Amino acid sequence: MGNELLIGKTLNTNAQWIAKQATYLGIPVKRVTVVADDANEIADTIREALGRKPHFTITTGGLGPTFDDKTLEGIAKALNRKLAVNTEALNMIRKKYEAYAREEGIKEVKLTRARVKMATLPEKAKPIPNSVGTAPGVQVTSEQTILIALPGVPSEMKAIFNDAIAPLLKQASGKSVFYEKNVYVDGVMESTLAPLIDEVMRANPSIYVKSHPKGREDKSHLEINFSTTEDDDERAEEKLRKAVMCLSRLVGDIDGKFIVYG
Amino acid sequence: MGNELLIGKTLNTNAQWIAKQATYLGIPVKRVTVVADDANEIADTIREALGRKPHFTITTGGLGPTFDDKTLEGIAKALNRKLAVNTEALNMIRKKYEAYAREEGIKEVKLTRARVKMATLPEKAKPIPNSVGTAPGVQVTSEQTILIALPGVPSEMKAIFNDAIAPLLKQASGKSVFYEKNVYVDGVMESTLAPLIDEVMRANPSIYVKSHPKGREDKSHLEINFSTTEDDDERAEEKLRKAVMCLSRLVGDIDGKFIVYG
Repeated sequence: MGNELLIGKTLNTNAQWIAKQATYLGIPVKRVTVVADDANEIADTIREALGRKPHFTITTGGLGPTFDDKTLEGIAKALNRKLAVNTEALNMIRKKYEAYAREEGIKEVKLTRARVKMATLPEKAKPIPNSVGTAPGVQVTSEQTILIALPGVPSEMKAIFNDAIAPLLKQASGKSVFYEKNVYVDGVMESTLAPLIDEVMRANPSIYVKSHPKGREDKSHLEINFSTTEDDDERAEEKLRKAVMCLSRLVGDIDGKFIVYG
Repeated sequence: MGNELLIGKTLNTNAQWIAKQATYLGIPVKRVTVVADDANEIADTIREALGRKPHFTITTGGLGPTFDDKTLEGIAKALNRKLAVNTEALNMIRKKYEAYAREEGIKEVKLTRARVKMATLPEKAKPIPNSVGTAPGVQVTSEQTILIALPGVPSEMKAIFNDAIAPLLKQASGKSVFYEKNVYVDGVMESTLAPLIDEVMRANPSIYVKSHPKGREDKSHLEINFSTTEDDDERAEEKLRKAVMCLSRLVGDIDGKFIVYG
């Protein structure tokens, strides 16, 4: 979340990164929402997300020391919980500033209002250590959903995700893993390919097939993405191979066109 | 919208591009949502968006010929309107395929089901010409909202936006334009700068100031973004300059630190 995304200043690479990690860990992503740095907007969005009863809801951004870092305020509103200084989080933050001070040769560390703000969490939330930066991540449970707030700085977000969130997601998904395969078809219009893809999906019900036009409809270069979620490597490979062969055969029937393996 | 975004395969450059254009045209963007290629999910999202009573709602993707191009089905559901072949859209599409056929030396153009699908619009919608690709954009009004559906292929989306949508947005925003200025502060921690930014915003109520940490909290390189929406160039410049000077003065008070103009 954040205004820099809504004014088009920043590309939402965080959403893509998290979506990719979660998908490959076997947790499909259902929705991505970007809202302004406004506690009510954030609260509305969190409430809507929780209303869809997901296993996980992950936010990025808005955990820092500035006035417009409002994610925790938004989460507290959505959950109808109070915000309070969390001792564990405050200790994490104090240690960070003590370490920075030692590097700089400064003696006294002030826990200013802006710094204490990063340790002010919704009740019953727990802080998650941030090995790269200052603001801890935050984890809080609401009914069946684990709500996780990560910082917006990509290096911090990724560190916390890899250290603490990926294992949670993996545990929840069990043995399921996401598999995909890309192939390319040149010189066939997407509208000509469309009914063939329908046929492939009917014949291979566990495989999702999607065409991505990379050229123009008339000078067509299509990327075809085959994907499935499976708990067995070999079975996934075999299913994907079968679906690709099926499309290959159908495309071969259009005089002289062929499929290129990715 | 689209699964390729939810699996993290594709970066949402369309959302960034549209957000930037709309912002600079004086139309602030309130929310960006990514959902799956599923008619019910799309319908829910459109209903939620319309419920917030915006001036404009813009979708990208899902207008093509394949089974998973479900945006128009989703919009029809959300508006409780029937889908029907739109003659104007069908003519646009027929002409495209006739032109492709001439290039390829093919005599007969078949308007297959997959092709007619791109001309199957919600009732009372109007097609918007696509100068780059095949699927027309779609415009439909619902109460106070103008709902616009654009293709997902970036070159087609941009062409339709520039030709037909930018003028609509400009007309709605009147003379308002978005202005911004970036400056950089090195060696000041974001938590130290936070109360100074608060002070700048209190002294310059029409200016929004946001810090973007680019380094680590202790080796800090901060980008400070000043922005405002104004209908007069000179007044905007003057207001931004005043706010930057204000921060510069405050930062100067922290022994020997300084601000670098962007």
